[in-house]
Amino acid sequence: MANDNAPIQFPNIPPKGPNGDLLLAAERAKATFDVKSLTKIMYTEQYLKKMDKVLDVLENDPAFDKSDRYHHSRPEKIAASLWKDKRLIELTKEHNWDEEEVGIANFLYDMSTPFTLHYSMFIPTLKNQTTDEQKKLFLERALKHHIIGCYAQTELGHGSNVQGLETTATYINETNEFEIHSPTLTAAKWWIGGLGRAANHAIVMARLILNGKDFGPHPFCVQIRSLEDHTPLPGITVGDLGPKFGFNSVDNGFIMFDHYRVPHISFLAKYSQVKPGSGEYVKPPNAKLSYGTMVWVRANIVLGVRMAIAKAATVAVRYSAVRKQFVDAANPRKWDNQVIETPVIDYTMQQYRLLPAIASAYACYFTGRDMMRLYELNQAEMAKGNFGLLADLHASSSGLKSLTTTMAVSTIEDMRRACGGHGYSMFSGLGMFYQDYLPNATWEGDNYILTQQTARYLLKTYRNVVAGKAVASEYNFTVNYLLQYLQNPNAKCPATTGADLLNPELILSAFGFRAAYGIAKTAELIDKQGHSWNSMLVEINRISRAHCQYMLVRTFIVSLQTDERFAKPENRDLLKVLRNLASLFALYTMEQELGEFLTSGYFNSEQAALLKQQVIALLEEIRPNAVALVDAFALPDYYLNSALGRYDGKVYESYTKAAEGEPLNKQLVVEGYEQFIKPLVHDGLNPAGAQAAKL
Amino acid sequence: MANDNAPIQFPNIPPKGPNGDLLLAAERAKATFDVKSLTKIMYTEQYLKKMDKVLDVLENDPAFDKSDRYHHSRPEKIAASLWKDKRLIELTKEHNWDEEEVGIANFLYDMSTPFTLHYSMFIPTLKNQTTDEQKKLFLERALKHHIIGCYAQTELGHGSNVQGLETTATYINETNEFEIHSPTLTAAKWWIGGLGRAANHAIVMARLILNGKDFGPHPFCVQIRSLEDHTPLPGITVGDLGPKFGFNSVDNGFIMFDHYRVPHISFLAKYSQVKPGSGEYVKPPNAKLSYGTMVWVRANIVLGVRMAIAKAATVAVRYSAVRKQFVDAANPRKWDNQVIETPVIDYTMQQYRLLPAIASAYACYFTGRDMMRLYELNQAEMAKGNFGLLADLHASSSGLKSLTTTMAVSTIEDMRRACGGHGYSMFSGLGMFYQDYLPNATWEGDNYILTQQTARYLLKTYRNVVAGKAVASEYNFTVNYLLQYLQNPNAKCPATTGADLLNPELILSAFGFRAAYGIAKTAELIDKQGHSWNSMLVEINRISRAHCQYMLVRTFIVSLQTDERFAKPENRDLLKVLRNLASLFALYTMEQELGEFLTSGYFNSEQAALLKQQVIALLEEIRPNAVALVDAFALPDYYLNSALGRYDGKVYESYTKAAEGEPLNKQLVVEGYEQFIKPLVHDGLNPAGAQAAKL
Repeated sequence: MANDNAPIQFPNIPPKGPNGDLLLAAERAKATFDVKSLTKIMYTEQYLKKMDKVLDVLENDPAFDKSDRYHHSRPEKIAASLWKDKRLIELTKEHNWDEEEVGIANFLYDMSTPFTLHYSMFIPTLKNQTTDEQKKLFLERALKHHIIGCYAQTELGHGSNVQGLETTATYINETNEFEIHSPTLTAAKWWIGGLGRAANHAIVMARLILNGKDFGPHPFCVQIRSLEDHTPLPGITVGDLGPKFGFNSVDNGFIMFDHYRVPHISFLAKYSQVKPGSGEYVKPPNAKLSYGTMVWVRANIVLGVRMAIAKAATVAVRYSAVRKQFVDAANPRKWDNQVIETPVIDYTMQQYRLLPAIASAYACYFTGRDMMRLYELNQAEMAKGNFGLLADLHASSSGLKSLTTTMAVSTIEDMRRACGGHGYSMFSGLGMFYQDYLPNATWEGDNYILTQQTARYLLKTYRNVVAGKAVASEYNFTVNYLLQYLQNPNAKCPATTGADLLNPELILSAFGFRAAYGIAKTAELIDKQGHSWNSMLVEINRISRAHCQYMLVRTFIVSLQTDERFAKPENRDLLKVLRNLASLFALYTMEQELGEFLTSGYFNSEQAALLKQQVIALLEEIRPNAVALVDAFALPDYYLNSALGRYDGKVYESYTKAAEGEPLNKQLVVEGYEQFIKPLVHDGLNPAGAQAAKL
Repeated sequence: MANDNAPIQFPNIPPKGPNGDLLLAAERAKATFDVKSLTKIMYTEQYLKKMDKVLDVLENDPAFDKSDRYHHSRPEKIAASLWKDKRLIELTKEHNWDEEEVGIANFLYDMSTPFTLHYSMFIPTLKNQTTDEQKKLFLERALKHHIIGCYAQTELGHGSNVQGLETTATYINETNEFEIHSPTLTAAKWWIGGLGRAANHAIVMARLILNGKDFGPHPFCVQIRSLEDHTPLPGITVGDLGPKFGFNSVDNGFIMFDHYRVPHISFLAKYSQVKPGSGEYVKPPNAKLSYGTMVWVRANIVLGVRMAIAKAATVAVRYSAVRKQFVDAANPRKWDNQVIETPVIDYTMQQYRLLPAIASAYACYFTGRDMMRLYELNQAEMAKGNFGLLADLHASSSGLKSLTTTMAVSTIEDMRRACGGHGYSMFSGLGMFYQDYLPNATWEGDNYILTQQTARYLLKTYRNVVAGKAVASEYNFTVNYLLQYLQNPNAKCPATTGADLLNPELILSAFGFRAAYGIAKTAELIDKQGHSWNSMLVEINRISRAHCQYMLVRTFIVSLQTDERFAKPENRDLLKVLRNLASLFALYTMEQELGEFLTSGYFNSEQAALLKQQVIALLEEIRPNAVALVDAFALPDYYLNSALGRYDGKVYESYTKAAEGEPLNKQLVVEGYEQFIKPLVHDGLNPAGAQAAKL
């Protein structure tokens, strides 16, 4: 086969016109606001400059090349990731990048790696939980990458139930050591990122056993692999836990300990301590302040959700402006006076899928930003000894983490499907993204379990409000909407036209009423009718969602009313577009949850019908700005890594180019031909086999 | 590194008890019906025997081994698939398997391969669309695998809009040939299974051009690769289109034609013909009968949905009985008089996720079966010249294909998530299954576009009913529920207790009323208020769903009332369980669509509250049979290929065993260590670097 290894090349002919670049240019010309202004408002000019600078470096560095990303096998993914990890350390030094710039590099590269947990969990834990002596021994070396670490908490048999962890760390008084041990198979540490292949150290959460008494899980910093040759140390079984639905660029691993001894200093002793020799336990001081950190982490997750949804929406919206399907006979689209097939973005059903996604990305931007503000406000108040904001903020942030990451997960997949058949190609950029994003629904609190925390707070607050022990406040919206509901639990929505439903006050009353109604009914069933917590879990999930949808809608609306940047005359057009988005987000959410709004009695059937039509009217109004609104997120092509979502709209050229690169195409004839196909086909060429084929 | 290539092995210690085998045995002891009876009813004894026989062969044949399936890279997947394709041909001969047995082998192997489209599209098309001469030339050789084919319809730029296909086949009168040509980049045939690497022939759908006149898409059978050495023939650009979200065991490919000549006989001439020399077109006879085949294909898809949901539910339900999390303090679970953590299946929220999935698998079983019955009934009627059933059957089958495959897609992913963190491991068996199942939502009619067909029929029927041109009939339920609605469009649901909601008549009235209400309102907006079809697409999607949910609920309920097998005294317990499942399916669906039931005015708020509580009550009632109900689907472990869903419940043993096999673990030290990790860590061992680490 002389032609073997001949590359496959598409002929150099254009797609059926009008081509994507022209269609996207026409879309951009329709925008009614200045895209760059919105981008600057969201990111700041200084951040955008940093992004440009870092992007320029990454796009020209082979370790950050993404062109083979969708072809890599599992071992190739790990190898590419380790290369990136080492190269990022070098680039950071070379370009003297600050923490924000390193963050931008990781954001743009957009794939977790074996070292990710070293930065996100190992180092932060060492910063927060160590004595000065331990900082010298562990933290300083970790910062220099002289040791590489991970964070080993979850076990094969226990995740959310941290108190059920089985790994033990028994203090040996005689030798001043701890013996770390995995008593059962389910005690294996599991899912630990970086552990499978890369780390030589781990923070291990193990039950502290002192003089026969169990003090529950505590953190230890433990060496697990040789610093000389990286082989596992004796007493340890460690490895990669195999292929996952996504996240295959990370070496999530397992580890089991067989009576593994570590020195006394391995026990991270910033808070609780173990006295050498006697094994006496010294209790930690009460640490309510750590809840503040959780709020910060979750605010960041919500801001991350914004980017995740924006990424998916950018791809789907741009491609929907380029992809044409059928001629809409009632309203044929024309181009240069010729009827062309209608770009799918012009179909209402497609708008109904795309535009609420854009709206939710902006909703998460405003809410994430506001959570940051409240986090800082709360830190300042706590420093003054005022813990009054904490409970509400913590409960809302738990529920918002759950609600928004669940939204992101389903939106990414919705956007992939909204790309039609080609959404199924990895070159859409959305398949792997969905797979890699999914763990967000599980880590930092399982999304189902978190809603129980939020609901517990809501029910407690309700009981306090009923008992007259809670008063309206500037910050506690939960108390406010509960009070409003209790004043008139038979209130009815006053809307008589679709336009009435756009009134921000009306929207907030409706969301508050619906949340309060669910909380009140749940409290009644539990407190008065004696239903068990377990039997109420479905409702408990619902009231957390109702509360957090109220928060998202409220923050979106109020931010537009109060943020002075939008009050400037030059941003008037922008404000109008964002107000429409806020309305769409609110009304679309209402429609999705219509059963609850109707059950609460606040809405009636006629209003439900008005609502549906108003949603369609808003789609029509927002439609001309669809491409501009995703452009405003300013996500570079390098980040999107999508043939369908390119800024220039050259979808088909880029997609066929990508297909040329498929490794299977490097051989003109498929491997396995000689063994599996040729014998069958050549049988037909033999005189005996071919007989039937002769005419 | 002396230890290199030492396999990683977990210590031989048990998981924390009670172990999965004991927990599943306890679950099975709770069943209130005979599992084997239900299995036999669903499959027949003869089918089960065939399944056992085929299973035994596959489990012992290395070409059908699944143990490396989740580790394979893309090229490994293709190579393994070609091996399977060839081996299946051999096994079929060896064991003299009939068509059903080959079908069982493909079902159990559960992964499409490069030859899949040869059987499912190439051969059937040759059977249906060829002349006798063409049968000899193409079909006979295809049946002997002397030629391997695929079906090339979809193009890069056109999928659902078949009339928009761009590839041309221009008849050359002088040479009696057709010239097949791809005029633009978007004319590239795309997504074609088997084309990328395996096929040497293709059915190509191309616009027939005769004497300058375009007759639209017609089928051609075209050789594309050499039978001698499998290289692409001159004038053809062909290859694999690259990695996909799933289905990577298939070589979906592209092909472009550059003025590629084929002989006159390539044009498949069973229906329309082209006269040699003159290029005169001979029209096909009107072929309304082909709609019947579509019903058959879609009935099979619905029966396939049953298996897809059953597979996912089997894994999630069994694992939820084994997986324990937290102690439910209000109702602690005991084992051997010791409090144990509660199996997650005992949490209401988990039941709310799992049990409706089981119910929907059974719903699809009854509906798929009934569609087959109606298909045969309709074929018989059409043979008598009666086309009265066809329109309703065709519309319902379109909508049911859309609704049930959409249900399957989301249920598979729900079940994967219901497995908690471990659902993310490929060893759950559900990740790749989700990815591979997804195309069902797109092929055989895009799920969104199909609902427009259904809605068109529903609106037309409504107009006929209003005009008095349609009468109640034994078979046409659409007419029946529309008539009932029009008799009393202000009807109210009479339920006053939760138990009332279990009444089958009440359930059917509610679903019929809700569907009719939506159809009537949509008709009004289009016909009286002049809304465009495009602006109504969201509602159009909803009325198709409402109609098909009615069909699913109706068939489930009526089958239990009329199927004589359930009337037998020995099946009384079984019938009771299935009735509960039917109620759960109906009430859970109502709850998901509560907004529509309330908007229609048929339900009120109090009934909505009753509904929610009745769903929870049904969960409790069905709960003891959960494992038995998935066992009844009798899906073998070989088919499930899941560490979590094994029949014996030995989840953790099987899962850790699978992790041992991860290829990355075959080397004690990760590839890339020398280059990317060692330099960092050894810097810390040098006197200069290590300084800071000294205590």
